[in-house]
Amino acid sequence: MKREEVLTEALPYIQKFHGKTMVIKLGGHAMVDSAILETAISDVVLLELVGIRVVLVHGGGPEITEKMKAMGKEPKFVAGLRITDEETLEIAQMVLVGKINNNIISLIAKCGGKAVGISGNDGSLIVARRMTPQKVSIGGKEEEVDLGHVGEIEEINPAVLHTLLDNRYIPVIAPLAIDRNGQSLNINADTAAGEIARALNAYKLINMTDVEGIMDRERTVVYQRIRATEAESLISRGVVSEGMIPKVSSIVNAVKAGVAYGHVINGNKPHNLLLEMFTDEGVGTMIFHD
Amino acid sequence: MKREEVLTEALPYIQKFHGKTMVIKLGGHAMVDSAILETAISDVVLLELVGIRVVLVHGGGPEITEKMKAMGKEPKFVAGLRITDEETLEIAQMVLVGKINNNIISLIAKCGGKAVGISGNDGSLIVARRMTPQKVSIGGKEEEVDLGHVGEIEEINPAVLHTLLDNRYIPVIAPLAIDRNGQSLNINADTAAGEIARALNAYKLINMTDVEGIMDRERTVVYQRIRATEAESLISRGVVSEGMIPKVSSIVNAVKAGVAYGHVINGNKPHNLLLEMFTDEGVGTMIFHD
Amino acid sequence: MKREEVLTEALPYIQKFHGKTMVIKLGGHAMVDSAILETAISDVVLLELVGIRVVLVHGGGPEITEKMKAMGKEPKFVAGLRITDEETLEIAQMVLVGKINNNIISLIAKCGGKAVGISGNDGSLIVARRMTPQKVSIGGKEEEVDLGHVGEIEEINPAVLHTLLDNRYIPVIAPLAIDRNGQSLNINADTAAGEIARALNAYKLINMTDVEGIMDRERTVVYQRIRATEAESLISRGVVSEGMIPKVSSIVNAVKAGVAYGHVINGNKPHNLLLEMFTDEGVGTMIFHD
Amino acid sequence: MKREEVLTEALPYIQKFHGKTMVIKLGGHAMVDSAILETAISDVVLLELVGIRVVLVHGGGPEITEKMKAMGKEPKFVAGLRITDEETLEIAQMVLVGKINNNIISLIAKCGGKAVGISGNDGSLIVARRMTPQKVSIGGKEEEVDLGHVGEIEEINPAVLHTLLDNRYIPVIAPLAIDRNGQSLNINADTAAGEIARALNAYKLINMTDVEGIMDRERTVVYQRIRATEAESLISRGVVSEGMIPKVSSIVNAVKAGVAYGHVINGNKPHNLLLEMFTDEGVGTMIFHD
Amino acid sequence: MKREEVLTEALPYIQKFHGKTMVIKLGGHAMVDSAILETAISDVVLLELVGIRVVLVHGGGPEITEKMKAMGKEPKFVAGLRITDEETLEIAQMVLVGKINNNIISLIAKCGGKAVGISGNDGSLIVARRMTPQKVSIGGKEEEVDLGHVGEIEEINPAVLHTLLDNRYIPVIAPLAIDRNGQSLNINADTAAGEIARALNAYKLINMTDVEGIMDRERTVVYQRIRATEAESLISRGVVSEGMIPKVSSIVNAVKAGVAYGHVINGNKPHNLLLEMFTDEGVGTMIFHD
Amino acid sequence: MKREEVLTEALPYIQKFHGKTMVIKLGGHAMVDSAILETAISDVVLLELVGIRVVLVHGGGPEITEKMKAMGKEPKFVAGLRITDEETLEIAQMVLVGKINNNIISLIAKCGGKAVGISGNDGSLIVARRMTPQKVSIGGKEEEVDLGHVGEIEEINPAVLHTLLDNRYIPVIAPLAIDRNGQSLNINADTAAGEIARALNAYKLINMTDVEGIMDRERTVVYQRIRATEAESLISRGVVSEGMIPKVSSIVNAVKAGVAYGHVINGNKPHNLLLEMFTDEGVGTMIFHD
Repeated sequence: MKREEVLTEALPYIQKFHGKTMVIKLGGHAMVDSAILETAISDVVLLELVGIRVVLVHGGGPEITEKMKAMGKEPKFVAGLRITDEETLEIAQMVLVGKINNNIISLIAKCGGKAVGISGNDGSLIVARRMTPQKVSIGGKEEEVDLGHVGEIEEINPAVLHTLLDNRYIPVIAPLAIDRNGQSLNINADTAAGEIARALNAYKLINMTDVEGIMDRERTVVYQRIRATEAESLISRGVVSEGMIPKVSSIVNAVKAGVAYGHVINGNKPHNLLLEMFTDEGVGTMIFHD
Repeated sequence: MKREEVLTEALPYIQKFHGKTMVIKLGGHAMVDSAILETAISDVVLLELVGIRVVLVHGGGPEITEKMKAMGKEPKFVAGLRITDEETLEIAQMVLVGKINNNIISLIAKCGGKAVGISGNDGSLIVARRMTPQKVSIGGKEEEVDLGHVGEIEEINPAVLHTLLDNRYIPVIAPLAIDRNGQSLNINADTAAGEIARALNAYKLINMTDVEGIMDRERTVVYQRIRATEAESLISRGVVSEGMIPKVSSIVNAVKAGVAYGHVINGNKPHNLLLEMFTDEGVGTMIFHD
Repeated sequence: MKREEVLTEALPYIQKFHGKTMVIKLGGHAMVDSAILETAISDVVLLELVGIRVVLVHGGGPEITEKMKAMGKEPKFVAGLRITDEETLEIAQMVLVGKINNNIISLIAKCGGKAVGISGNDGSLIVARRMTPQKVSIGGKEEEVDLGHVGEIEEINPAVLHTLLDNRYIPVIAPLAIDRNGQSLNINADTAAGEIARALNAYKLINMTDVEGIMDRERTVVYQRIRATEAESLISRGVVSEGMIPKVSSIVNAVKAGVAYGHVINGNKPHNLLLEMFTDEGVGTMIFHD
Repeated sequence: MKREEVLTEALPYIQKFHGKTMVIKLGGHAMVDSAILETAISDVVLLELVGIRVVLVHGGGPEITEKMKAMGKEPKFVAGLRITDEETLEIAQMVLVGKINNNIISLIAKCGGKAVGISGNDGSLIVARRMTPQKVSIGGKEEEVDLGHVGEIEEINPAVLHTLLDNRYIPVIAPLAIDRNGQSLNINADTAAGEIARALNAYKLINMTDVEGIMDRERTVVYQRIRATEAESLISRGVVSEGMIPKVSSIVNAVKAGVAYGHVINGNKPHNLLLEMFTDEGVGTMIFHD
Repeated sequence: MKREEVLTEALPYIQKFHGKTMVIKLGGHAMVDSAILETAISDVVLLELVGIRVVLVHGGGPEITEKMKAMGKEPKFVAGLRITDEETLEIAQMVLVGKINNNIISLIAKCGGKAVGISGNDGSLIVARRMTPQKVSIGGKEEEVDLGHVGEIEEINPAVLHTLLDNRYIPVIAPLAIDRNGQSLNINADTAAGEIARALNAYKLINMTDVEGIMDRERTVVYQRIRATEAESLISRGVVSEGMIPKVSSIVNAVKAGVAYGHVINGNKPHNLLLEMFTDEGVGTMIFHD
Repeated sequence: MKREEVLTEALPYIQKFHGKTMVIKLGGHAMVDSAILETAISDVVLLELVGIRVVLVHGGGPEITEKMKAMGKEPKFVAGLRITDEETLEIAQMVLVGKINNNIISLIAKCGGKAVGISGNDGSLIVARRMTPQKVSIGGKEEEVDLGHVGEIEEINPAVLHTLLDNRYIPVIAPLAIDRNGQSLNINADTAAGEIARALNAYKLINMTDVEGIMDRERTVVYQRIRATEAESLISRGVVSEGMIPKVSSIVNAVKAGVAYGHVINGNKPHNLLLEMFTDEGVGTMIFHD
């Protein structure tokens, strides 16, 4: 493809996205490979450079688990959900805010961008309530499990994001929330990204993960463009499963609430973010409203 | 070159040029080939789309000559300068403003842009005085020739351009001026473009003509980057000659007065404007201050 | 009348009109008598001086006809309508934009005002569609005649006028339009003035022509103040006829759409414009809504 | 003179004065003839109507004297200066603020204007210090006389005037001042008008009095235009004398400090204010800087 | 009470009242004791200092009566209402505007505040109509009495207050009004304060008088907080009587129209205004909407 | 002291401090007693409530030491300075940003305030370079010790603070910096507070610690007000020593650079912050410029 063709294709997107808000979820896996993380961050800085209002939400599950083990604390999961006692919450906060978030801020500075790292506590960005005990099936028996300091999002107060974006800071958000009594709670990063995209009335919500997109049951074909209702049906039919469920659900909810497009793309391939944004064909799976 | 490479190369330029002013001179030759003109105009609209403040100055010599002949009026030149009597001025105005300028406006609208066509009369944009009779060598003898209604620029009042640019209209300027008594005068379009670039403190002045750039005496090598003083020396040594003189001089003057870069590029090659703006190597010749 | 009486009568009008928009149509006849034109222009500049937002629309029929003849092209009319082939359109554009409009701009500069000349193409000010063939009675037989590049106004985009007026430029408009494909079309100047007055929600629409106002059938009495519905009835009853029809119709439409007052005044009498604006009795005919 | 001539003469002045500040001193004599007062006020309202920032300063000596007599209090003057004891000050305040000022406000409202009456106390507009005892010649003998609560202006705080003018209220000012301890003082209205004109950097200071202007020694010729230095010389040579001294001095000081023009006009002739402002020849005497 | 407790109690009120409008009525009795007046004024200046938009309305009945007597004019009252003939009106104006109002302005300046004194005439703040003759019982017989130049409020034009408040001047209002013909009228100060509080949509209306608050029939208990309907019932049952009626009625009307709280407090006790504003328990009686 | 006296004393300070910037350093000791911390935070929220621009800088040394021990990592100090290897830095970041900072944010939310927690990395607020090895005396022998990832402040970029303060967020700053390569560094919190106060041109810098103020050599007398040069002399004479040195030095530097007042107060006494701010005598030691 000739350079002038790439340019004439890209320029209208650049104009179209100018001033628009894009919420990007960086998966926990990106956090553990520093080369991948740096490329992703440099793309994010380029997006901001051309006038896009970028909001970054990161996860950090693998790093929390790792740090807990290093501190001699055994991580406990029930049906894939982390049991978060007092001590686990403290470690999660220290890892998410004090390590991962801080690290991303440093990388953005290194790439020439300006960022401010916050969690859901800051400016009461994410208000949550403690999740009620979950019914999970353990050994074929259904049991009620209290997950501890894990939150369910009640409300997003996006004012602090507008303040930062209006002043051209990239907000980098750690997945923690605050409850009505000022208690911190652990929350799911995919869900947080979706709710923030809704509250900002974002143009796109892009979930950068480690697969090519949403695939069919045989994992051979990547869907390029699907409707939100089709995506829901893929979940209910079990084609989308496990860790992909919160990613796809949060996109479906956001798209239904007014976010124009949701995307699942492979964050491990360098510059996939740019290709998704500035080429006609894009990459990964795009979810749009019916 | 891979698409992501083109993009990562181009995006920083797009950011850098955002809000900057670029004065583009479209040569008279582009006016007579409608395919070339349309590509150039579509590039101009793309530039405006990504936030560049584009000012277009056009010529029209060949079309004036053609129209004069069609009207049974013989064009007269002395040493390459057009003798402009009352009738010639009227034809020049009708062709420049009523035909060429109007045509460019229609093309910009067709490409999705918004433009306003003006001449140096509007808002007293270009104030000139009648040129004093020129000493020219005719048949080896030096004679004084009165060129008629031909102007020498005295002052640029750029307010009307700011008004249009601030409201995201592309100003398209026909090379006419007004004198202190409200009399119209014909002026050189290259010089007008240079003076306007100066008055706007433009970032770039790009002269789109029908050669590859400034070439050495043998016309084999195109200079890629030269200093303003080198360009001056090329003129004084006769390497730059004839019609290229006002093009290069106006760039040299503009660059010395604070315009960051001047360019001579081949407007006949499609999308050369985009390649010059958004690639590291660029095209044609770039002139910069010492 | 004593000077202080003129002043105490005029000052409240000056205050009342401050910041209000007035659309003034200068008839084609004014274009051919330069003394009349200059007086009219100097009044227009005075109006702008005291804070009125003046928009000037000019015609140019007689000059187009004259230029066509000079170029050996025979003007053709069918039932009073000009047949506009490709060549005629080009001549019309050159005369209207390149000659008349340009001339008015120079005169305004001479009187100390600031103006920008535009046509309906600029900023897509006047969007039109090609007129469908007209049924006209030729020699007693009704025939369909295609008028060629003649437009019927579909939409006014007044943004460019607001931009100019807000920056205290007098917009001077040539009666040309652009269609959805970027093709220029010839349009009636009276109609254009009326549509522009509507789109700007002007306070007055003043048609400066070469008669004293709207007269009764015997051409002995000038109506001083009539309702829009009375004016319509004068048209349907044939009292208003021929060239006066588009003048009166465009005023009637404008007044019905919210323009406070429409006027037909004799532009050949010096300073009639000032007398109309700043005296209690005014001149010519005023049309107001029922 | 034809109406259009009056208009073309007046309109440029109207434009020129738009947004400019004019300080008008209304003499105490105007206060006692209600017909004269009403005409003057209606002119002032017209001036404000066409965008002039009008500030009115009034006197009131004759009315104070009258009220004192009515209250059985004998007014005392030494060498033309009023001795102002506690009781006299109270009466002066009640007459100036509670009667005259209030009356002017009502008249402005009646003429359709909006005014706010203030004295030098409001917003600490006029800060003064008590005048030191004056040496006056009584019966050929020089004596020191303490004038009582009479002030010498130290400072003007024009903020309250800007606030009112920016919101299109006509400030009407009674000649009282406040000292550093919050004590009210009586001051000369001509001097106050001059100091206010200075502090506002007014365009004109117009003293409306009961003579035609500044006259020569024989009282036969009114000077039309004189320089500030000539006016000073007229004072020192005794041509300008008695009550005219503070009027002319305050104008001279204002003009030297940057006020463009000072005027002495006869306020008893109806509409003299309009004629001064809006005709080429004007009325009375104009004083300008050398 | 410890200082830190007073502060932690007060600071939230200071924040809450920031930018809110408070209308304060200063009773005529305060006008005759200069020590009480000075303390009240210093509190008012403190309120303004911490960002409250304070509007002061004053009375002056006792001083008018006193001045009338001093001038040999017998004050006449019918059933507690002052008969206001031409001469009485003039004295009332001179006392209210020229003496009391002026005096308050001086005191505010002395306390470091900035004030502008106005009456209902200024900017047509208070428009009234002449009161129709009142039926009063004289010696057991009901008679119609014409009160003369006494007004009934028709309309408040608060623009002048906004202008002053926005520029941080304390407006000090004398209880005079203007009728549609520009005639001044005397009005009740309590009623004026209430109508102004309504028109400004004030947060509080505080009537500073010489009793502790609204008391029960035996004058032993002060009601601390009562509903507007209870207050009305106290009037109709005669518990609130005589001079207290307009005070309570004006508060009831204001509160019903949207003013959050009305207060009757004893202005003779120093700093009662501060205690009412910045302590949890407050002083006097608070009236609130049901 | 009577309530009205506390109020009349406090209100002028409240006005004076409105819109002013105060930098408050919360010592590490406050972090370990949650009751003290909550009172301090509630006072900070009150200050913000009345319009003060509050910036909070916290320390955290004791908590870092504690967490290191809990993680089996031995803290090392040389001459009172912490040796910060890679692992120590990671723990410091996690404790400062992920635990302490996050905890303060939650407390502010609980008290009804809005805060955003940042470190020196965010928006490149604090740029530092790695400290050169320090010469310290160990066992009487002078040795060079490399402190590891410990920074010396080079530059403050306060833009992010202005953004937050302008939008009424309380910035809460953890003492970390970023170097030119994007590497995090540990810094002294007292010094950071001082540099931030300088960069913001703060009105006050208040260091809340666990002593009454600056004391004489015998620790019997607390200095109430001292000049910056006296404070310097106390350091050089060894009266101020050990941990007090950076506290006093940072204040001295700030005051010399334009901060109006510096304070050392005992943060362990409840509401000392309010008493310092809003009473005439204040608490602790105030340092002011000579």
